[in-house]
Amino acid sequence: MGKNLTKRSEDYSKWYNELVVKADLAENSGVRGCMVIKPYGFAIWEKMQAGLDKMFKETGHENAYFPLFIPKSYLSKEASHVEGFAKECAVVTHYRLKNAEDGSGIVVDPDAKLEEELIVRPTSETIIWDTYRKWIQSYRDLPLLINQWANVVRWEMRTRLFLRTAEFLWQEGHTAHATKQEAIDEAELIMNVYADFVEGQMAVPVIKGVKTASERFAGAVETYCIEALMQDGKALQAGTSHFLGQNFAKAFDVKFATKEGKQEHVWATSWGVSTRLMGALVMTHSDDNGLVLPPKLAPIQVVIVPIYKGMEQLDAISEKVAPLVKALRDKDISVKFDDRDTHKPGFKFNEYELKGVPVRLAIGQRDLENGTFEVARRDTLTKEIVAEADVIGKIVSLLQEIQANIYEKALKYRESHITFVDSYEEFKNVLEEKGGFIAAHWDGSAETEERIKEETKATIRCIPINAETEQGNCMVTGKPSSKRVLFAKAY
Amino acid sequence: MGKNLTKRSEDYSKWYNELVVKADLAENSGVRGCMVIKPYGFAIWEKMQAGLDKMFKETGHENAYFPLFIPKSYLSKEASHVEGFAKECAVVTHYRLKNAEDGSGIVVDPDAKLEEELIVRPTSETIIWDTYRKWIQSYRDLPLLINQWANVVRWEMRTRLFLRTAEFLWQEGHTAHATKQEAIDEAELIMNVYADFVEGQMAVPVIKGVKTASERFAGAVETYCIEALMQDGKALQAGTSHFLGQNFAKAFDVKFATKEGKQEHVWATSWGVSTRLMGALVMTHSDDNGLVLPPKLAPIQVVIVPIYKGMEQLDAISEKVAPLVKALRDKDISVKFDDRDTHKPGFKFNEYELKGVPVRLAIGQRDLENGTFEVARRDTLTKEIVAEADVIGKIVSLLQEIQANIYEKALKYRESHITFVDSYEEFKNVLEEKGGFIAAHWDGSAETEERIKEETKATIRCIPINAETEQGNCMVTGKPSSKRVLFAKAY
Repeated sequence: MGKNLTKRSEDYSKWYNELVVKADLAENSGVRGCMVIKPYGFAIWEKMQAGLDKMFKETGHENAYFPLFIPKSYLSKEASHVEGFAKECAVVTHYRLKNAEDGSGIVVDPDAKLEEELIVRPTSETIIWDTYRKWIQSYRDLPLLINQWANVVRWEMRTRLFLRTAEFLWQEGHTAHATKQEAIDEAELIMNVYADFVEGQMAVPVIKGVKTASERFAGAVETYCIEALMQDGKALQAGTSHFLGQNFAKAFDVKFATKEGKQEHVWATSWGVSTRLMGALVMTHSDDNGLVLPPKLAPIQVVIVPIYKGMEQLDAISEKVAPLVKALRDKDISVKFDDRDTHKPGFKFNEYELKGVPVRLAIGQRDLENGTFEVARRDTLTKEIVAEADVIGKIVSLLQEIQANIYEKALKYRESHITFVDSYEEFKNVLEEKGGFIAAHWDGSAETEERIKEETKATIRCIPINAETEQGNCMVTGKPSSKRVLFAKAY
Repeated sequence: MGKNLTKRSEDYSKWYNELVVKADLAENSGVRGCMVIKPYGFAIWEKMQAGLDKMFKETGHENAYFPLFIPKSYLSKEASHVEGFAKECAVVTHYRLKNAEDGSGIVVDPDAKLEEELIVRPTSETIIWDTYRKWIQSYRDLPLLINQWANVVRWEMRTRLFLRTAEFLWQEGHTAHATKQEAIDEAELIMNVYADFVEGQMAVPVIKGVKTASERFAGAVETYCIEALMQDGKALQAGTSHFLGQNFAKAFDVKFATKEGKQEHVWATSWGVSTRLMGALVMTHSDDNGLVLPPKLAPIQVVIVPIYKGMEQLDAISEKVAPLVKALRDKDISVKFDDRDTHKPGFKFNEYELKGVPVRLAIGQRDLENGTFEVARRDTLTKEIVAEADVIGKIVSLLQEIQANIYEKALKYRESHITFVDSYEEFKNVLEEKGGFIAAHWDGSAETEERIKEETKATIRCIPINAETEQGNCMVTGKPSSKRVLFAKAY
């Protein structure tokens, strides 16, 4: 197809890296580990933001904004939290530059050293709970349901566009509740919101579950998650929602007066999804020809390419296309008529395939005569000739069909890649030869989990919410187990 | 009114600080100079963002995202640019924390020192132009019209909520063009977009102009601006749009092949507005009772307060109110029915006045019997009784009327505070006794401008775009001048 894209079967990782750059989603910047999100990629992220933001608001959350910087002493207040993030913190130590005295250029001014270092937020629990102490006095102030859209920084040594970058964009929800149960309900609500968004709009099927203790967020009592499966058989954690117990309320001394007038610590949750979802979107649906985007998130849902010789033909086509463009826009369908005369139709076809535009219309001289359009769908790469009168209806139904089809395809792949195994030997074989999720019995100990991870690189992705109770024995130690957990190699 | 708000006439500055906090717009955080934008304040900012974003997209701009960090060497490439920002840069020098060996807590790991320090972006010209070098090869790649919504950091010693904070939120547009004229046109277009937004949606009248050389953005050839006037007679720069010439293209070696095949440097603009606009919004319209918000940006446009005794009366009111709420929402009017039983009507009236809700409805037993509502408008604090059948129409027209009225009021104030003076003596008197803009002749030299600034604290806010040609003499040096410029003390 002339796209010079590595095939997935040859090198999945290389295919992904090339695709993200060639489809104009993102690229590496001159700053180690930080990416530039290009306009086409950002347009997809904006649609994801809008979709999520609407769902958060519909479930009673409000947006706010908290500082980028966190004083080192705040981060240190919750012991397991700082333990989890200390090794990847970007630290601001000075607040001024100056001209070097030897004329060698601009240097950091040693006289402008901060008394206390500031950490660029890796996540905002500490600064937010320091604020909540002032906002929460009484049960009347609860629940407090707040979300923030922000950039965060976690210094990563090995980075990959969208999947793992030093700086990334995300949303982080931080809620405060009067009771333990209410906080747990919130954490579960958000896990469900995330699953609905990822499945319903991104068309990526997910498994809901909880993390094991060793995979939990630093500072959480329980971490709920949604896990997706990529086409190379590796899992990707798509979102997490944490029940934080009273850990942060205690660390930051946030108490409220109950109806009965008692002072109690507040219960908390936090939850987030990030630009990592862009990676999941790309890896779930795309193929050797380029991106395949779900219509609900595609910046351009329909592209129309004219095939013509000379201005007269183009004018005739443009006249035919104009009312169609208007009719589609009236239906909130985003459409682009690409009448650039600097590129040939074949080049344009390639470009829009690479960029994953769900529906492509072509119209040439013969179509004009016959009153038809050629309609192509990106997911199956099939084409058909559609009469002018039917074309709007066809586009509307195709967009729905493509959204459903790519979800079904991904679900089918996922379902066929959950393998039940009962011995460690079989586990290793399946992991190496087939990949995907492996449902196996585990004795519940961190030691066994760690041993499996060291020996096979597979981690427990989650204990599925809907896992059935089933008597079994840990595949490694033979100790009793009451349900299977899901293992996989993961991004 | 029981709001414990300092009066504007007593202490304007104190009034502002109190209002921002009491109306739940923002507060200071535990991080020096960084604010927390609270949900109510953020809801206004979101509406401002949405309004601006739509206007940017309608004028052909796309959003993207560039790194938070800028390598020190990038910042240094454009000489006047680094000169302008070096003194207020937050500098990241390390990327890891660790436990102190003496057990005293968490410390910065000296082994994790960055080879090159990273600056937290004070503005993004340098990182963006480093990227544009890769994106621009040919005239076909131009114009490049990109905007980013982001947080930036400028280390300020004296900060004030929204007006001057170490971290603030903004948008920054960065465009690249094939010709000088096209770049100038873009800079002017954006000045007009800003003026349309600030006048049309914020209801804040502005004067369009250009900055003098000494007030220009660091690295600009020409800075266009919009200047507003606050109720205390001080000016506030509400937005700037810079024609950057080829300065950044040369510093970052960004060239393009013209149609004729020649290699030329690209022409550039950059432009931004920030959360500072929130300060302008508050200070332009609000009064001693609290915020006055323009209906187009009010998170709650209409509040309905029931006045009742007992559940039976509340039920009857709720039944009457429900269809009204629905009808208003169908018209995209945001409405809140405040039926909290924890607070009395008087408390609620106070609260919504403080928060600037444009229209307040009250309904009690007598209204129920008479089929009426009491309708109050925030801008004039007047009330009237409106028949049920007319209430929707009344609300729709009131919202338009309030939007127009607060603009007219601010415009009238501004017009009556532009004083033409011809002597330096008169200038000083007007500045001290009346304030506002002073239109005076100036000899065009940086020396005179600096002298006036030192002696009076007034700066040249702008050379108005529509200033008439008029022969005159500089009020300080007596040298000839061809037009008046606008002086003021400013935020």
